[in-house]
Amino acid sequence: MIGGGQGAYIGNIHRIAARLDGEWQLVAGAFDVNPEFGREFARSQGIDDDRSYGTYDEFIAGEVAREDRVDAVAICTPNFTHYPIAKALIEAGFDVICEKPLTATLEDAVQLENLATETGRFVGVTYTYSGYPMVHEARVRVARGDIGNIRTVQVEYPLEWMATAIEQKGNAQAAWRTDPKKNGRGGSIGDIGTHAYHLAGFVTGLKLQFLTADLATFVEGRALDDNAHVMMRYEGGARGLLWSSQVALGNSNGVRLRVFGETGSLSWYQEQPNELIYAPLDGCVQVVKRGAENLSEDAKVRTRTPPGHPEGYLEAFANLYAGFAEAIVARREGRAPEALGQNLPLAYDGLKGVAFVEAVVDSSEATEPVWLRPIAV
Amino acid sequence: MIGGGQGAYIGNIHRIAARLDGEWQLVAGAFDVNPEFGREFARSQGIDDDRSYGTYDEFIAGEVAREDRVDAVAICTPNFTHYPIAKALIEAGFDVICEKPLTATLEDAVQLENLATETGRFVGVTYTYSGYPMVHEARVRVARGDIGNIRTVQVEYPLEWMATAIEQKGNAQAAWRTDPKKNGRGGSIGDIGTHAYHLAGFVTGLKLQFLTADLATFVEGRALDDNAHVMMRYEGGARGLLWSSQVALGNSNGVRLRVFGETGSLSWYQEQPNELIYAPLDGCVQVVKRGAENLSEDAKVRTRTPPGHPEGYLEAFANLYAGFAEAIVARREGRAPEALGQNLPLAYDGLKGVAFVEAVVDSSEATEPVWLRPIAV
Amino acid sequence: MIGGGQGAYIGNIHRIAARLDGEWQLVAGAFDVNPEFGREFARSQGIDDDRSYGTYDEFIAGEVAREDRVDAVAICTPNFTHYPIAKALIEAGFDVICEKPLTATLEDAVQLENLATETGRFVGVTYTYSGYPMVHEARVRVARGDIGNIRTVQVEYPLEWMATAIEQKGNAQAAWRTDPKKNGRGGSIGDIGTHAYHLAGFVTGLKLQFLTADLATFVEGRALDDNAHVMMRYEGGARGLLWSSQVALGNSNGVRLRVFGETGSLSWYQEQPNELIYAPLDGCVQVVKRGAENLSEDAKVRTRTPPGHPEGYLEAFANLYAGFAEAIVARREGRAPEALGQNLPLAYDGLKGVAFVEAVVDSSEATEPVWLRPIAV
Amino acid sequence: MIGGGQGAYIGNIHRIAARLDGEWQLVAGAFDVNPEFGREFARSQGIDDDRSYGTYDEFIAGEVAREDRVDAVAICTPNFTHYPIAKALIEAGFDVICEKPLTATLEDAVQLENLATETGRFVGVTYTYSGYPMVHEARVRVARGDIGNIRTVQVEYPLEWMATAIEQKGNAQAAWRTDPKKNGRGGSIGDIGTHAYHLAGFVTGLKLQFLTADLATFVEGRALDDNAHVMMRYEGGARGLLWSSQVALGNSNGVRLRVFGETGSLSWYQEQPNELIYAPLDGCVQVVKRGAENLSEDAKVRTRTPPGHPEGYLEAFANLYAGFAEAIVARREGRAPEALGQNLPLAYDGLKGVAFVEAVVDSSEATEPVWLRPIAV
Ligand SMILES: NC(=O)c1ccc[n+]([C@@H]2O[C@H](COP(=O)([O-])OP(=O)(O)OC[C@H]3O[C@@H](n4cnc5c(N)ncnc54)[C@H](O)[C@@H]3O)[C@@H](O)[C@H]2O)c1
Ligand SMILES: NC(=O)c1ccc[n+]([C@@H]2O[C@H](COP(=O)([O-])OP(=O)(O)OC[C@H]3O[C@@H](n4cnc5c(N)ncnc54)[C@H](O)[C@@H]3O)[C@@H](O)[C@H]2O)c1
Ligand SMILES: NC(=O)c1ccc[n+]([C@@H]2O[C@H](COP(=O)([O-])OP(=O)(O)OC[C@H]3O[C@@H](n4cnc5c(N)ncnc54)[C@H](O)[C@@H]3O)[C@@H](O)[C@H]2O)c1
Ligand SMILES: NC(=O)c1ccc[n+]([C@@H]2O[C@H](COP(=O)([O-])OP(=O)(O)OC[C@H]3O[C@@H](n4cnc5c(N)ncnc54)[C@H](O)[C@@H]3O)[C@@H](O)[C@H]2O)c1
Repeated sequence: MIGGGQGAYIGNIHRIAARLDGEWQLVAGAFDVNPEFGREFARSQGIDDDRSYGTYDEFIAGEVAREDRVDAVAICTPNFTHYPIAKALIEAGFDVICEKPLTATLEDAVQLENLATETGRFVGVTYTYSGYPMVHEARVRVARGDIGNIRTVQVEYPLEWMATAIEQKGNAQAAWRTDPKKNGRGGSIGDIGTHAYHLAGFVTGLKLQFLTADLATFVEGRALDDNAHVMMRYEGGARGLLWSSQVALGNSNGVRLRVFGETGSLSWYQEQPNELIYAPLDGCVQVVKRGAENLSEDAKVRTRTPPGHPEGYLEAFANLYAGFAEAIVARREGRAPEALGQNLPLAYDGLKGVAFVEAVVDSSEATEPVWLRPIAV
Repeated sequence: MIGGGQGAYIGNIHRIAARLDGEWQLVAGAFDVNPEFGREFARSQGIDDDRSYGTYDEFIAGEVAREDRVDAVAICTPNFTHYPIAKALIEAGFDVICEKPLTATLEDAVQLENLATETGRFVGVTYTYSGYPMVHEARVRVARGDIGNIRTVQVEYPLEWMATAIEQKGNAQAAWRTDPKKNGRGGSIGDIGTHAYHLAGFVTGLKLQFLTADLATFVEGRALDDNAHVMMRYEGGARGLLWSSQVALGNSNGVRLRVFGETGSLSWYQEQPNELIYAPLDGCVQVVKRGAENLSEDAKVRTRTPPGHPEGYLEAFANLYAGFAEAIVARREGRAPEALGQNLPLAYDGLKGVAFVEAVVDSSEATEPVWLRPIAV
Repeated sequence: MIGGGQGAYIGNIHRIAARLDGEWQLVAGAFDVNPEFGREFARSQGIDDDRSYGTYDEFIAGEVAREDRVDAVAICTPNFTHYPIAKALIEAGFDVICEKPLTATLEDAVQLENLATETGRFVGVTYTYSGYPMVHEARVRVARGDIGNIRTVQVEYPLEWMATAIEQKGNAQAAWRTDPKKNGRGGSIGDIGTHAYHLAGFVTGLKLQFLTADLATFVEGRALDDNAHVMMRYEGGARGLLWSSQVALGNSNGVRLRVFGETGSLSWYQEQPNELIYAPLDGCVQVVKRGAENLSEDAKVRTRTPPGHPEGYLEAFANLYAGFAEAIVARREGRAPEALGQNLPLAYDGLKGVAFVEAVVDSSEATEPVWLRPIAV
Repeated sequence: MIGGGQGAYIGNIHRIAARLDGEWQLVAGAFDVNPEFGREFARSQGIDDDRSYGTYDEFIAGEVAREDRVDAVAICTPNFTHYPIAKALIEAGFDVICEKPLTATLEDAVQLENLATETGRFVGVTYTYSGYPMVHEARVRVARGDIGNIRTVQVEYPLEWMATAIEQKGNAQAAWRTDPKKNGRGGSIGDIGTHAYHLAGFVTGLKLQFLTADLATFVEGRALDDNAHVMMRYEGGARGLLWSSQVALGNSNGVRLRVFGETGSLSWYQEQPNELIYAPLDGCVQVVKRGAENLSEDAKVRTRTPPGHPEGYLEAFANLYAGFAEAIVARREGRAPEALGQNLPLAYDGLKGVAFVEAVVDSSEATEPVWLRPIAV
């Protein structure tokens, strides 16, 4: 692991997720931008001193030299560092699990995606919400035609934690997220809008064609947007509305997706992730429960407990890790991956996310609103 | 009453609402576009034969001639007839309660609003959702600063009943609603988007400055939009997102408003109208209940039962009728109306609604999206 | 109407309910225990002075003397007065709509039910919850076997308004409710437990066989129970659990019924009365909506608006009034009543309710708990 | 670990829970009643062959002989085997984590609890629901007086999976659960009622004084109750109602606790475990969220992610495991355990649970209902 040191947020989630199914072991890392802190942290995690590195360069040098080198490396650092770290790792022959957004700039994303394709290295991107079993269930139901052709998609990701200027009061996570150099050009849209965009595409399979956007910055002194409204047009005629916000008081982590088709709709709300609401044309609204008999294989392989025993965020993240393991192992064994190792967010999905963010910012910065076609989408 | 005959939808709601508090009596009407049916229906309602009229012209002629003429006339006919009927009534000196949208065209709306102003006649517009007590509670809380300056507004009005081409299968309500000549240029946006727009403005007090919109028609053969996405910018910097849909399967009548301010948010969902969710900055989400002690006077005068005994749509509509009664009586008595008779949707609100719809359609029809400023808003 | 004067609670609900469908008119009354207040109140309601009576005796004398005497009389007075008032009215030949509990003592209830049977007078009892359309839907579904033989019934009626000793602080409604002489022996169980008991029996059609109960009084100085737990055994083997409470903070009016059968369950919650949850054996939980196409005739005749437009308490009460009207008219016309006039709570249901309360109190007062068989159940 | 082999239910949950925080490692086990299956399963879990044992006796013999013997042993076998296995382990000097119910008979429970006390061995009992952070939050709030003296407790544990005779169709989990010899005398009450009973006591701190119960068996051919109703009286005057059911269709795992005090109430529902509803006397209902700033230390140490990212069953179970680790380590280090290692379910809680079940069955079997006082409660 690179990043995810003392006090960092997402690194710890990765570690729990990796441990949960017992398929991954954390054996090496460069955990902190400050090498000393990183080594100290490594010790707290029971990492052998000779695999605790000061920087990602040292990490690469050290691991490449070992017979028992790591199987894959998770990148849990701020956005702008994803590109150099991932590039160096891929070039050194490592499989990579990279946090979203894939990179801070579109140029970097294109480069990285190309590099992944050329080298054939595995690059998974941790779009968390695609780890949830009921999101897979929704995807399967759309794909097999349960709701017919899609008409409109409503997706939103409201958060409240940045409703005040906490970046000016020592909050590390907020500090780099509001710094264009470290975060990229998209504020809320890059940080969480990219999750919403991926989730919508993941479930519907639709390709975005055009978008027009309106970004706003509400907290004084903030350099990036903290609220984004986007209207979308998908290939084939479906429309979409996306809202991301870091200042939406009352929303802890309110990811919500609603997909409306010709013959039914599907709704999923992240704060009640064990349910999927299915409303067919006949008016009989159904509550589909995680763990139930009548679920798809794709949902079943991503659940560990019977219905009624809530699974959540860590289990979803663990599903991504289990999927990455399966995909990597399958490739090494020269076989097709099983269900768990399919439908994973990969480098191309990461690239599409960055392209989306760029198009949103471009559209919003135009003097008049403009329908933009994100590249690579 | 004009319109609202046998098989009509909203006329019956008006009649119940008017009756509910015992302050109105239905004594005369021209209930149907077919005079014969109208008279038959009048009989079923216990209307005296000599006050059952074949047309609205006859209605005016007949009532003007009476000492005990009606106090006000409710217009419950399709959109395109609102203007001629209302105009004739106002010119004949009647106070009017008109269904939304005020008229089918902006020109008509401007004329009518002018006429109302000039003549001083009372013209109430039945924007239903502003009759709900918890919507008033929200308005009061915003106005007294409970959530600080507003940042973003999310408002939506999804419906499902027109998800298939029922207008081609004999559904009267759907038939005129999909006919531009009878409905006006805005399909879902004119029919229900106008409710959402009014609700958002009513609660926030914000003035719309610009909008850009994307209308879509999903049901084959339909001449008007059945799904609308609108991005909005209010004076003072707040943003908004509005979605209306007639094809959103699973949504019976899913009006939802969420208002996010600097120091709190308020959320109201029409299918659970007795609750208002208040989320202050301190993280302690509160469920505010209709009927509770701590509500504003404005909410209290619009409720008839203790908390826990659900009130709904008919009671909200009755609140409008009770308010119209108070406003009309107060004016006749030359006094200021009490709380019930204040904050009512009037002709100018109706005009703003039509202007909004026109701007949405114009924006959507432009080759590139465009920020439009609705007149009169 | 007898009772329901200035400041009274349920009388006003009766008046709105009677008005709502335009089938009843309030023309006469003795509204208050204080004749002067009663007359003053009558004036405020637009009652002709010559039909505004000081006492129920005067009411009877006056109305009996008129050609256009009232069609029926609603009794909206405290429990202990129901018996003398209803008796006098029935003996004078009036049809009666009586508030629950039918009487304050079992003896009175038996007498009154006998009197009703002998005289053939109509005696409706306003068990409110049996007016809700989705409660009728539940009843129909049970009756037609949708959930198979019933196994267990969970019914509860928690309230919070009497959590402190408000009866000592001038609250009129609480004062007589905590006075055994005026309320009867059962506190919460008589006031609201009787609703829960009726609701469970109404939906399931089950006959109570035995019960054992545990009453408690939590508010100091209160003479009657304010919390009741009851275990029930129905004929045929089904079991039940009933909880009523006047001190359950957080519950405005939390009536909830859950019925579990061999092949399905049905759940209804009064604070969201437009939904019925149906869970069949196959695991596919359904949300059944008031107003939907697939509902029973019994539910449909008790609804006025399309799905999604909430109906509530007043509409349920109005359904009882509409039903009483239909039942009374049908009898006068010598025909069977239509659906609306069927399945109404009548004198015998009132008697069963009082018998239930008596058995609960007896069981709880026994030194050891005891399975009691309520008479007449 | 003893038990929890291929196809077993709870063993796998223990393994995930133990792994989740990285503080436990599974290194030895006798996983199956069939030694061969057990060894095969051990291999699938990466257990060294020399620590994979055929029976618990072999396990003890083998581990006792090792320097690096296990720190503690988890017992994940059917109820009737808990006693002999736990006894043997404790006598051999192991700390034990035992599934609930502690034993299948009261006699065994008393013996085991005595043995634990005498030997000073650690015996944790996995009452799952006491692992949830919001359950701890509720406990703290009750303890610090937020809701005043408790008046009534409503606790329920409805399940649906045994609504048909699956024990006759090869379901292993249902088979032993319906066999009095393997399960003990209490069917649903022993299997899940014991959870509900513990949860209520854990949160309220109340001591049960008397109970009276009504057990029923609804599925034909079943030897034990599958539905239980219990009325309870706690020391100090509080009352309680407990319902457990294995045949409550629509309930996946519907554990629900509601505690009503003099000045407030607290409600927790296991299928939405990240929320606690707090209703104070002033009528302002609050939604308290896991992860929020204003939570108690006890809740905070049991949460891994910010509010809005759902944690559930596995995290709750992991909290128990983390707590057991802390308690065991603290004892070895001769210090008081930190918050995580406090308020854990131990042998005495297990004993109380078995005593509760016995009293329930005794009360229900009496010819007349009877208030029983469970021993040791
Ligand atoms: N998938 C999700 O839901 C999700 C959630 C949160 C964050 N994220 C993403 O995870 C990434 C990290 O976010 P965070 O909130 O955990 O940030 P953070 O600030 O909490 O942690 C970043 C960590 O990276 C370390 N670091 C920085 N530069 C480094 C370098 N050059 N070498 C080694 N370590 C370095 C820091 O010392 C710190 O420990 C971001 O890209 C963010 O977008 C994703
Ligand atoms: N406030 C709300 O929530 C709400 C809800 C539904 C409809 N509406 C509005 O109410 C109006 C009516 O809608 P509806 O769904 O009830 O329509 P509808 O088609 O059900 O009823 C229209 C009625 O008007 C009568 N009518 C038509 N032309 C007439 C004329 N010239 N003179 C007399 N009667 C005439 C018809 O015979 C019919 O009885 C529309 O403007 C609609 O937008 C408002
Ligand atoms: N169905 C329900 O859901 C429901 C709800 C509330 C009350 N109730 C029942 O309604 C009845 C009244 O309850 P309330 O809360 O409205 O009581 P209340 O105290 O508010 O009103 C009682 C009214 O009766 C009048 N009254 C008393 N004695 C009278 C007499 N002899 N003659 C004429 N008027 C007399 C009083 O002056 C007062 O106006 C009770 O039986 C109660 O159980 C039923
Ligand atoms: N805490 C909870 O929420 C919870 C949930 C489910 C089960 N449980 C408890 O867990 C225990 C097991 O239940 P389950 O549903 O997992 O049962 P199960 O039938 O699925 O598994 C029992 C396992 O124990 C093994 N086993 C049986 N006898 C053994 C022996 N003598 N030596 C070694 N292994 C043996 C079996 O081979 C099987 O692998 C029960 O006591 C049950 O009450 C608790």
